[in-house]
Amino acid sequence: MLTIRPVDLAPSRSVVELIAAKRDGQRLAAEEIAYLVSALSIGAMADYQMTAWLMAVFFQGLDDEETEALTLAMLHSGRTLDLGSVPGTKVDKHSTGGVGDKVSIALAPLVAACGVAVPMVSGRGLGHTGGTLDKLEAIPGFRTQLTPDEFARIVADVGCCMIGQTADIAPADKRIYALRDVTATVECIPLIVASILSKKLAEGIDALVLDVKVGRGAFMKSESDARTLADALIRVGTRAGKRVSALLTNMDAPLGVAVGNALETREALDVLAGGGPADVVECTMSLGAEMLVLGGKAIGDEHARALLSAAIGSGAAARIAERMIEAQGGDPRVVCDRERLAVAPEEVVVRAPREGYVVAIDALAIGLAAVAMGAGRTRADQPVDHGVGICIDAKPGARVTRGTVLARLFFRAASHAAPVVERVQAAFSIAETPPLLRPLVLGRRT
Amino acid sequence: MLTIRPVDLAPSRSVVELIAAKRDGQRLAAEEIAYLVSALSIGAMADYQMTAWLMAVFFQGLDDEETEALTLAMLHSGRTLDLGSVPGTKVDKHSTGGVGDKVSIALAPLVAACGVAVPMVSGRGLGHTGGTLDKLEAIPGFRTQLTPDEFARIVADVGCCMIGQTADIAPADKRIYALRDVTATVECIPLIVASILSKKLAEGIDALVLDVKVGRGAFMKSESDARTLADALIRVGTRAGKRVSALLTNMDAPLGVAVGNALETREALDVLAGGGPADVVECTMSLGAEMLVLGGKAIGDEHARALLSAAIGSGAAARIAERMIEAQGGDPRVVCDRERLAVAPEEVVVRAPREGYVVAIDALAIGLAAVAMGAGRTRADQPVDHGVGICIDAKPGARVTRGTVLARLFFRAASHAAPVVERVQAAFSIAETPPLLRPLVLGRRT
Repeated sequence: MLTIRPVDLAPSRSVVELIAAKRDGQRLAAEEIAYLVSALSIGAMADYQMTAWLMAVFFQGLDDEETEALTLAMLHSGRTLDLGSVPGTKVDKHSTGGVGDKVSIALAPLVAACGVAVPMVSGRGLGHTGGTLDKLEAIPGFRTQLTPDEFARIVADVGCCMIGQTADIAPADKRIYALRDVTATVECIPLIVASILSKKLAEGIDALVLDVKVGRGAFMKSESDARTLADALIRVGTRAGKRVSALLTNMDAPLGVAVGNALETREALDVLAGGGPADVVECTMSLGAEMLVLGGKAIGDEHARALLSAAIGSGAAARIAERMIEAQGGDPRVVCDRERLAVAPEEVVVRAPREGYVVAIDALAIGLAAVAMGAGRTRADQPVDHGVGICIDAKPGARVTRGTVLARLFFRAASHAAPVVERVQAAFSIAETPPLLRPLVLGRRT
Repeated sequence: MLTIRPVDLAPSRSVVELIAAKRDGQRLAAEEIAYLVSALSIGAMADYQMTAWLMAVFFQGLDDEETEALTLAMLHSGRTLDLGSVPGTKVDKHSTGGVGDKVSIALAPLVAACGVAVPMVSGRGLGHTGGTLDKLEAIPGFRTQLTPDEFARIVADVGCCMIGQTADIAPADKRIYALRDVTATVECIPLIVASILSKKLAEGIDALVLDVKVGRGAFMKSESDARTLADALIRVGTRAGKRVSALLTNMDAPLGVAVGNALETREALDVLAGGGPADVVECTMSLGAEMLVLGGKAIGDEHARALLSAAIGSGAAARIAERMIEAQGGDPRVVCDRERLAVAPEEVVVRAPREGYVVAIDALAIGLAAVAMGAGRTRADQPVDHGVGICIDAKPGARVTRGTVLARLFFRAASHAAPVVERVQAAFSIAETPPLLRPLVLGRRT
């Protein structure tokens, strides 16, 4: 593992020379990459130089050592959380984002109930993908902005804690990501890897399980791209001294039946009560099993799944969820009484226009419809409405007749429902023959 | 010729989409490129987005139509000079820059003396290359910042005028060039072409002769790269409605024997008096002949050279130089009495360390030595010393013995001469056998 920190910097090439070097396909030394990130932070490299470098990286790539150097430089641009006071292995999960992905909310307490500490730093929704923080904030009183000391204390006391990225965690990643977002340099594997890992490494974890989403509603549209990303994350994460594994999971259709913040939190808590849609349960159990194995609490997948099922059956996982929610200022009664998560009052039904089988539900279209309803945001500074959302009543494979309820939409006021209803209806593909559905877990990478 | 102007803009793709499109190798419509330049001007595109786009262009290129659109967008970002009041064909020359290239100062009056008007907008030195404006300003009182009206009046009255780029000529080019300079996106043929032509088209010219320098002291190191640049300039300039031709000229060694502002202006004026080093005379005559042919005053090279020689021999060219200098506030007596161009007082001699033939003089090293002496600048806002400079006494091919004077350096104070003397001496390659020298004019492109 590299240990380059800003104080070690002694670059012999200038910022412009380093841009030119990457432009020309040269490898940069770890110290040089650390210098660029540091120079951006202190104003010795302008944003317009960083974006030129990022575009050069888009074309020329970064090898694993360069990617690790970028990861560590962004990590060390801010503070790291010290979880030395928490005994045992600390494991987190990262998802590359999808529609209806509420898994973290059940997963963290579930894995913690099995004895593996989960210090989780999550994000907010942007564009068609939702964010765990927005979903958690549907819980009355729940605070996602805690001090590092509060975070460490709750992880130690409860076994898990779920917070937002603070301004002092990997600030260079935040700045570089904002630049990538407006310069068409997001879709670049080594930059994605460094961005994900710099934040996750700041959590003080020992191991990381990746949920790389694949499909229409995901960032990675093909399994091959998803594998490439998963493998790069595993290689670079391993270089940085962490145990890392990855699952590739299907994101052609939304995960579960709920899309929207309160609705999704309800659904995640359903899983802790032994219920929940099959795909959400499968996703939670598969990722949880990986985390228990990496965390040293299970000897294999079967053992891990047995432990997880027991933690649900005994109510231990739900109790951890209650304690975590209470410790973070939220109303713990939502765990048992999920109606306390307020859903918007105006229900509008979307019906099947004809008979057949639901063969696909366009996750991207559903995600964008939820954003249009106010459940998500198109700019980072927009507020979200926790109550609005979509319930899917006919998942892929369902047989419908004309008029069958495909989905229910929950609005504050139904007056503007018409265009959204149309979009949601259009997201459902209905055909005469039943679909060949891909499994939820498409692959596993280690 | 395209006629896209800002008022015609109606882009259907956003700035980020246009960056992504170029990144992915797509052609942009002329309107889209015009939109980007306009968006940069009005703040709808940030500098950090432009630099990402420029780096994408570095990798994916621009075709001739895109390059023309960029040229015209930058041209229309500012005002264009109206020379409608000047009768006849207006022709200018552009050099891609080198060391000791003082040709413009003799060329403009010489061509004007033959009846072709020369409205010339020149630049300042930066890095190892000198700039015509700095050299002209060695003439006491000479003003290079004139109003467009003054410029047009002097071109009409005298036949030529030499000014600097004003803030309102192609301001978008100025801004984009400044960004390219610090983001390793200078070395990109279509961007070079658009930058050169946008400024030259603003002069109100009908035809343009290009002096594309090739070699160690030039921007283009190989003849093949120089040909590519020349051909692109000719194609795009022709698309934009101008007659364009190009000479490729040798810039392995400095042009002439003088490097430094006052020294170079002296040397250029020597040419108008019928003297001057052979290579400077040849460069001036070759470019002048191209200009007379494009300007319709000569039927071919031989005819043109005869006209140019006559204008020198009769003193007509020198008289035009005097009138131009006087019209621009300078002391016209420098044309005949070139000692009035003040050279720094402290002369330090550089001698040959051994016997042999001078086989090469590294123009880049000589240019940088002149900058170190104060004759040039490394940043655009630095002042220059017009008096300091270098005289080369042994050009490539010269036979020297140990102690032969290779060059004389002129300093304000000789106390800091030692490191420069060493650099200048090291710039001379001396070998036992005489060199095979390339001709000055390496090729002609039309």
